Amino acid sequence: MPNLIECVPNFSEGRRAEVVDEIVRAVSQIDGVTLLDHSRDATHNRSVLTFAGAAEPVVRAATAAVGRALELIDMQKHQGAHPRIGAVDVIPFVPLGTTRLEECADLARRFGEQIAQRFELPVYLYGAAALRPERRRLADVRRGQYEALREELGVDPARDPDFGPSRLHPRGGAVAVGARKPLIAFNVNLATDDLALAKRIAHRIRESSGGLPAVQAMGVLLENPGEARRAQVSMNLVDWERTGIARVVREIRHLALEAGTEIDHCELIGLAPTAALLEVAADVLALRSFSADQALELRLARDR
Amino acid sequence: MPNLIECVPNFSEGRRAEVVDEIVRAVSQIDGVTLLDHSRDATHNRSVLTFAGAAEPVVRAATAAVGRALELIDMQKHQGAHPRIGAVDVIPFVPLGTTRLEECADLARRFGEQIAQRFELPVYLYGAAALRPERRRLADVRRGQYEALREELGVDPARDPDFGPSRLHPRGGAVAVGARKPLIAFNVNLATDDLALAKRIAHRIRESSGGLPAVQAMGVLLENPGEARRAQVSMNLVDWERTGIARVVREIRHLALEAGTEIDHCELIGLAPTAALLEVAADVLALRSFSADQALELRLARDR
Repeated sequence: MPNLIECVPNFSEGRRAEVVDEIVRAVSQIDGVTLLDHSRDATHNRSVLTFAGAAEPVVRAATAAVGRALELIDMQKHQGAHPRIGAVDVIPFVPLGTTRLEECADLARRFGEQIAQRFELPVYLYGAAALRPERRRLADVRRGQYEALREELGVDPARDPDFGPSRLHPRGGAVAVGARKPLIAFNVNLATDDLALAKRIAHRIRESSGGLPAVQAMGVLLENPGEARRAQVSMNLVDWERTGIARVVREIRHLALEAGTEIDHCELIGLAPTAALLEVAADVLALRSFSADQALELRLARDR
Repeated sequence: MPNLIECVPNFSEGRRAEVVDEIVRAVSQIDGVTLLDHSRDATHNRSVLTFAGAAEPVVRAATAAVGRALELIDMQKHQGAHPRIGAVDVIPFVPLGTTRLEECADLARRFGEQIAQRFELPVYLYGAAALRPERRRLADVRRGQYEALREELGVDPARDPDFGPSRLHPRGGAVAVGARKPLIAFNVNLATDDLALAKRIAHRIRESSGGLPAVQAMGVLLENPGEARRAQVSMNLVDWERTGIARVVREIRHLALEAGTEIDHCELIGLAPTAALLEVAADVLALRSFSADQALELRLARDR
């Protein structure tokens, strides 16, 4: 199997289904690319595509998606709840299988340079692809969002892009291109509607406030029609080999019990590395000398 | 991906490593076959190979293994703790991925006919490949073992093989060829050395005494040098989609707690279908709307 790379571009359009369909189509037409997922969120006015393949077809698909998005999305008219700097807001490349993170960082830099030139688009490199340490965190790159960048780009040299012009693309704004490990989007729903508790638990477990390494967390209140209101700890596990699902769930269960409530159920959003889920099984069973190689399909994939 | 089939032949030799190595070599030489596992047990005087591939190379590898075993193993000299009827005792074909059990049953019948003719070996079809209902259970085919078969074959028509001569192969005895679903060999080690309790729990959970469907179980006492003696419930889950790991563990935990003890740890022997392990994770996390397709590598394998 060639070195597999996943690409998870985020687009600033979550209301016009036909626009997202067009971008999906641009990706699907590329041979050698498997579209794994796509989702559209009207509140955030944002869409996410997930596709995978070898480096070359993945780059071609990402380029096609950028081209289509720049034609169809106009940032001057965009409003939505999610932070963003451009029509194609962020394009992470993620190593799968035996691919190394550094390969994805190299690929992100080459890809960033290409699209900057081809589309006259300011490109910021972030994550493992960052060329400046202050751009490793995506939140720092996106500070003030599209609106701040419109004011500061070309004026404040600290905001100069890594590639492309020091002015926004007229419709597309700017884009962050980066490399990161696979991210697990994982939510724990508590058996309570106590939002303050969910926020306290999130504060306790997230790395930025001294909690578990490689965990991002926030407390939110779910209000779905026909269902009980429920407090949720919503997380990104950005490096599951440092802090995995079993460990965050154990910690949240402990904090919930302390507060006199418990976990009602959990949710895995999108895809996760199989090994990260097997670890949960091995943990609960206290499996002795377990290896992910004992999972038949993983073993076969490795050897073929 | 072509229709994948797993083959798990058992050989009546677990003491002479060089003999097992020869059989492994015969399998490994076949293009298109992946050797997944092999294990050798001196007490049982028995070895198990696990390999997989498309039907045609798997049949070639199994035929090569039978040929080599008949040259190297002499049943007239064999002694061991495990029931057996021949040098190659049993050859199950197992569906992987999207392969259907019935395809494996057809393959087992064709393969059985071929080796019966080629090696003048009596072949009994069992499991999903059985042509007589009384031969579905392997234990019934093996009743009285090699020694009984030597007396009864050619005398009692009920013991006539499905293919091949009504007399034992001079060195190799007879063989059971069949088709079955993937089997999970799974042990639960209790925090006690109370063998009687392990036996009681095994009795309560196994299908044959009215317990959980598709569960075979026995209680044994582990006595490993340097470790605490431990009572173990040793199981085969012969159809994990009917009774999975999570359910047997929950039941055993309940019975152990009733008896004032608990589960110390579990062991997965050899390989298991990935989905059977993911089910354990989904169960403990009470995952809402989880699908094995959310495991990245499984999803990719499906779509490629």
